[in-house]
Amino acid sequence: MKKLVLAYSGGLDTSYCAKYLSQEEGFEVHAVSVNTGGFSKQEISEIEQKALELGATTYTSIDAVSHFYEKVVKYLIFGNVLRNNTYPLSVSAERIVQALEIVNYAKKMGAEYIAHGSTGAGNDQVRFDMIFQIMAPDIKIITPIRDNKLSREEEIEYLQKNGIEYSWEKAKYSINRGLWGTSVGGDETLTSHLPLPGTAYPSQLEKEIPKELKLTFQKGELVAIDGEIATPVENIEKLSEIASKYAIGRDIHVGDTIIGIKGRVGFEAAAPLIIIKAHHLLEKHTLSKWQQYQKEQLGNFYGMLLHEGNYLDEVMRNIEIFLTDTQKNVSGNVFVTLHPYRFELNGVKSNHDLMNASFGSYGEMNKGWTADDAKGFIKILSNPGKIATHSNLSDD
Amino acid sequence: MKKLVLAYSGGLDTSYCAKYLSQEEGFEVHAVSVNTGGFSKQEISEIEQKALELGATTYTSIDAVSHFYEKVVKYLIFGNVLRNNTYPLSVSAERIVQALEIVNYAKKMGAEYIAHGSTGAGNDQVRFDMIFQIMAPDIKIITPIRDNKLSREEEIEYLQKNGIEYSWEKAKYSINRGLWGTSVGGDETLTSHLPLPGTAYPSQLEKEIPKELKLTFQKGELVAIDGEIATPVENIEKLSEIASKYAIGRDIHVGDTIIGIKGRVGFEAAAPLIIIKAHHLLEKHTLSKWQQYQKEQLGNFYGMLLHEGNYLDEVMRNIEIFLTDTQKNVSGNVFVTLHPYRFELNGVKSNHDLMNASFGSYGEMNKGWTADDAKGFIKILSNPGKIATHSNLSDD
Amino acid sequence: MKKLVLAYSGGLDTSYCAKYLSQEEGFEVHAVSVNTGGFSKQEISEIEQKALELGATTYTSIDAVSHFYEKVVKYLIFGNVLRNNTYPLSVSAERIVQALEIVNYAKKMGAEYIAHGSTGAGNDQVRFDMIFQIMAPDIKIITPIRDNKLSREEEIEYLQKNGIEYSWEKAKYSINRGLWGTSVGGDETLTSHLPLPGTAYPSQLEKEIPKELKLTFQKGELVAIDGEIATPVENIEKLSEIASKYAIGRDIHVGDTIIGIKGRVGFEAAAPLIIIKAHHLLEKHTLSKWQQYQKEQLGNFYGMLLHEGNYLDEVMRNIEIFLTDTQKNVSGNVFVTLHPYRFELNGVKSNHDLMNASFGSYGEMNKGWTADDAKGFIKILSNPGKIATHSNLSDD
Amino acid sequence: MKKLVLAYSGGLDTSYCAKYLSQEEGFEVHAVSVNTGGFSKQEISEIEQKALELGATTYTSIDAVSHFYEKVVKYLIFGNVLRNNTYPLSVSAERIVQALEIVNYAKKMGAEYIAHGSTGAGNDQVRFDMIFQIMAPDIKIITPIRDNKLSREEEIEYLQKNGIEYSWEKAKYSINRGLWGTSVGGDETLTSHLPLPGTAYPSQLEKEIPKELKLTFQKGELVAIDGEIATPVENIEKLSEIASKYAIGRDIHVGDTIIGIKGRVGFEAAAPLIIIKAHHLLEKHTLSKWQQYQKEQLGNFYGMLLHEGNYLDEVMRNIEIFLTDTQKNVSGNVFVTLHPYRFELNGVKSNHDLMNASFGSYGEMNKGWTADDAKGFIKILSNPGKIATHSNLSDD
Repeated sequence: MKKLVLAYSGGLDTSYCAKYLSQEEGFEVHAVSVNTGGFSKQEISEIEQKALELGATTYTSIDAVSHFYEKVVKYLIFGNVLRNNTYPLSVSAERIVQALEIVNYAKKMGAEYIAHGSTGAGNDQVRFDMIFQIMAPDIKIITPIRDNKLSREEEIEYLQKNGIEYSWEKAKYSINRGLWGTSVGGDETLTSHLPLPGTAYPSQLEKEIPKELKLTFQKGELVAIDGEIATPVENIEKLSEIASKYAIGRDIHVGDTIIGIKGRVGFEAAAPLIIIKAHHLLEKHTLSKWQQYQKEQLGNFYGMLLHEGNYLDEVMRNIEIFLTDTQKNVSGNVFVTLHPYRFELNGVKSNHDLMNASFGSYGEMNKGWTADDAKGFIKILSNPGKIATHSNLSDD
Repeated sequence: MKKLVLAYSGGLDTSYCAKYLSQEEGFEVHAVSVNTGGFSKQEISEIEQKALELGATTYTSIDAVSHFYEKVVKYLIFGNVLRNNTYPLSVSAERIVQALEIVNYAKKMGAEYIAHGSTGAGNDQVRFDMIFQIMAPDIKIITPIRDNKLSREEEIEYLQKNGIEYSWEKAKYSINRGLWGTSVGGDETLTSHLPLPGTAYPSQLEKEIPKELKLTFQKGELVAIDGEIATPVENIEKLSEIASKYAIGRDIHVGDTIIGIKGRVGFEAAAPLIIIKAHHLLEKHTLSKWQQYQKEQLGNFYGMLLHEGNYLDEVMRNIEIFLTDTQKNVSGNVFVTLHPYRFELNGVKSNHDLMNASFGSYGEMNKGWTADDAKGFIKILSNPGKIATHSNLSDD
Repeated sequence: MKKLVLAYSGGLDTSYCAKYLSQEEGFEVHAVSVNTGGFSKQEISEIEQKALELGATTYTSIDAVSHFYEKVVKYLIFGNVLRNNTYPLSVSAERIVQALEIVNYAKKMGAEYIAHGSTGAGNDQVRFDMIFQIMAPDIKIITPIRDNKLSREEEIEYLQKNGIEYSWEKAKYSINRGLWGTSVGGDETLTSHLPLPGTAYPSQLEKEIPKELKLTFQKGELVAIDGEIATPVENIEKLSEIASKYAIGRDIHVGDTIIGIKGRVGFEAAAPLIIIKAHHLLEKHTLSKWQQYQKEQLGNFYGMLLHEGNYLDEVMRNIEIFLTDTQKNVSGNVFVTLHPYRFELNGVKSNHDLMNASFGSYGEMNKGWTADDAKGFIKILSNPGKIATHSNLSDD
Repeated sequence: MKKLVLAYSGGLDTSYCAKYLSQEEGFEVHAVSVNTGGFSKQEISEIEQKALELGATTYTSIDAVSHFYEKVVKYLIFGNVLRNNTYPLSVSAERIVQALEIVNYAKKMGAEYIAHGSTGAGNDQVRFDMIFQIMAPDIKIITPIRDNKLSREEEIEYLQKNGIEYSWEKAKYSINRGLWGTSVGGDETLTSHLPLPGTAYPSQLEKEIPKELKLTFQKGELVAIDGEIATPVENIEKLSEIASKYAIGRDIHVGDTIIGIKGRVGFEAAAPLIIIKAHHLLEKHTLSKWQQYQKEQLGNFYGMLLHEGNYLDEVMRNIEIFLTDTQKNVSGNVFVTLHPYRFELNGVKSNHDLMNASFGSYGEMNKGWTADDAKGFIKILSNPGKIATHSNLSDD
């Protein structure tokens, strides 16, 4: 029997795939879901039951939260990556790790086929297919939703005809939850001008009294909150928990999809935004001007290629090693205050702070140099301009 | 008599210069102040009176607000320039235009000397001196404060000894106001970890009820607010007026100074931040991916050179023309909501919107391409990865 | 009858298309060839005759040499564009202009179809199709060679069966000639390790005695050779004529194709290489450090997008205007000596030379600054390093 | 007695310093020369004798050739660094390593002073002073030539008066020899238009018969020539020896000095140019498009900062680690032919070649994809352009 691994989420599309591929196409369906931070145990257990009911031979839940952090999220923090200066790449980043886990699982299983439920209109198909094809060129990719351009109604009808009677009501907002943020799509995000209503976001304002936090970074990683040491993943989860009560981190991302059209999607990403901004502030104190300059260029580029599913390009490994090397001195505390819907960065304390070195402070004359030194400095800095002005007075 | 133009602000340092240079050094002092948006008529009139009392032969106030906008601010908007992703370069940008106005004034006057009150420890001396030296290499630069490393006390004592009895109490916070934002320095900004207290900022929260605004851009310039057409300068001023009642746009900039040390400065820049973010959003809808990519790199670079006083480098003109050319289609409305201490971007409407073209929407299958097209696209996109994986299995 | 414009070169593939599309598919075939510098009048006349014999209703030869220069070549010179530091993009650049001319011709003709003879394995199909689809989304693209994966033998057989008895011997080397260079493909270029034999190149060594030339540039354009003023196109042609007798400009380009595999192709491009290197030298004397820095980045990027058929992206127009603006002072003479197989750049004379300004010469102490100025300059330049060294002595 | 380390080369300037500082200024002079590839044993022995005669208390020759390679040259190869696309940074790179060796020696010696013979007009003073100040802020820098603006004649006169009667004839061309190339300055290089005469270059044409070489790279390093394994340093020396007989690698560099004026200098660098170009070709076969793109940007930037003496900026370490990581697969043979005054790259053989993978060859249809795949690819690539064209038909 033809062994097939199905990327299974429990939603309508992949439920259709599970039933259709096992029943109509004669595949031995091994359903697998990859948890990158969005699923509770309860949810996973429900997904499992559904998968088996739909005809899957086996179901496996892969816990990839720490892989997700180690392979991707860590570098998004090191690089202060916000796509188009806004979006922490929540979903894009998850898809990459999900694809890696699925293809590795399929290879381990000896599967000849991988199926997923993406349509032909979005980014996810590209992220999945590219990674599957590159890492396992001999495994065939099966995509019933894409191939048959099925509507929700057609899928539901097929499932009902086959005795599957779950409730598939369309949620008003489609939500994708993960360690690095939650995306929110709805009718408004199909327009250019409408914001999402506050109620569309998963977290609602629960606290109004400002709260101060101390975030401790060690070589660029978040190792403690208010002095409590934990793993970076635990700290991200804890910070999400705390900050989401302030309804922090809502925004809408507008960007270029891999397939060349513009897309718009809402997101809520309290912890990612606070961490990136706090980390960035710490870097401003601990890195040289040129480190910051090059990091910004490479970080943006890394985000672009990641977003576009180009994770396996060797340049990504080169950039990761570059970013890691820049973090040697990015250690210290960052002080943050949470407010309803926003946060403030108060400052940093770091042994590697290049600002409050005893060397001298900006704006105060000090032992570092004299007025004459400054004048010599400026005089020589002006050389190119002086020569150019002098030179270009003459005509051709 | 030796003709000298003094960049005069009415503060202690330049008041000392006015008195000292006219009385002790025998210069014919022509005081000039350049208004880039921070001075009221009343203030200018007081500055004038003071200058003459201190021994200046003439006083001139140059209104450079529109020059400031045309020569610098416009490009900071086109380039979405926020230094270190935070600071709209409020003061840096002003200094450039002030220097240009002063040197042109001095040349027109036939002055042999220009004096300014900067110390030897900061950025401003570099911005002033570079532009003076490049544009007028024959004019000598006189800087008593820098040369003599004078303290406030010494300056006050000298002035008092000479019968000048103004009150020179040191404000708790030093404030620099201009069209493109206000900088705020104080004891806290000399540390790395303390935020400025809310009261240090010039604007205080006066309104709590959210307010919606419609900002209209035409080729990248802000031409109307809520449908009322005015010049970009007027619109910036109006938006400042409206948004400052919400205490929007406070933050602290940490950055590398031209002289190589780190500096920290608070600022309030409601209008600059709202305009840049609104403009950036409009660009996400109207520019191609690669336009945005290159704009980001060139915009950041432009900001860096401007900050460092390198305004006269020819590359700045080349970048300005590049940025201007990218704005051809950056026209439309951006919808913004002001809240206490923050603002939200709701969306845009633009005839040049590349998203809501009838062509098709992200995530929906459409007439643009088929599932097979998508699969072909992805297959070929995967070629480099497939080849690399295949190739690098072998050993050296 | 279905009106079709066929991009016709007179070669086997497009001859097959002409016959097949007119006879089997019932198209009214309007053959058109676009001369970007490779065809003589005699050749064009032969192509015309052949086209009509093969069943074309009309034949048109479009002279696009000056469009080629104005739309593309000029910017490749301004940007000193050598793909992968080697290849002047001879063929890539031509294809773009050919596609533009053909689609404009087709729109003017009111054609519903455009046909071309590219296979599905190369870059040219991408360049043609992209420009056709973008500029005329309603015109259908017909590609018999690509669709039917025809071999040379099958094409010849079909033509012979239909009474077309030209000699279609395969040349040992496939040659593509144009204003901006000639490409040469052969068995060797399908390997990674074999060079092309000298005889494969179109020009052979005819002169051994070195020859000096004076190239005059005006705002970046080649306006005269040895003082004889002519149009840039004429000067490129004249320089090709002169330099090809020295067998200058042979090399092999290895690069990434649009479809993701590596390709290798020989080329001969005497004039392009001499002009770009001479122009670049003149820029080293007339542009600021930062102009050169940004030009290099944007020039490389421009070459990459052009090579990949992305000519119509708006960012290309933005870069063209940037590059043009950088050329304001790139005027003067460059002295070159031609030798067998190579050339030397001797130096430049320019009124905008920033080197031999009376200001001072490198390595000689001069009136520009003192030893103390230099020491102040260096001291302040060292600030970041001193602080960093000092700071990072301490542990975390 | 005041302990001073003198960077001593045996030339007039540093001989003057040795005598003057020991005799007039009362320093205990410890002369040290750092060999980065230019000195023979015989020369070192002569330098030693001279130093002692001039009053140095001790003389030390530091052999820094392998440090030079490991700390700098290696990365210049990895990055294919040619400043302004021409100059392998021969001298700039040496100075950095010399400064590092000298300051380390001075610290080990417990010296309170370091002296060098640079003038106030060039780059070397910046490279030396910056590294000395950053690595040993407490050591004072003594520069008699710079401070006293001494002419050759004054120096010679002083030495003669003190009984030092060496012959100090000025060579027509000043030559600086090292592992990574030889610089040549003369009257011609002070102009913009004159080339150096052939006789000014250290190597003269001795061989006319073309010679083929096989260069073997292992992870970016030159490990063998014609199959003979040796250290990279030995291979560079051997290749210099072989190629200089063909008078290969002569050129003139025009560039921006650190002090802001343009400079021009001749150089001969046969081995550096052959190695860089061969290495670059191997990379074109073994790296992804984006690796090459980012390497080019970072390599150029690395060269700029190195040239400007900014070697100690932490970003340099980050880039070095990036470059090293890109070299994982840059292994294989490159075939080169030497000709009089030039060389040709024939091709490469590498197990990591991404071109001749069995996957498929450019221009030939293959199993990798179909015509329909290609058409789907192009169709989707055209999406942004189609949308933009469609969108921007409408007016504002």
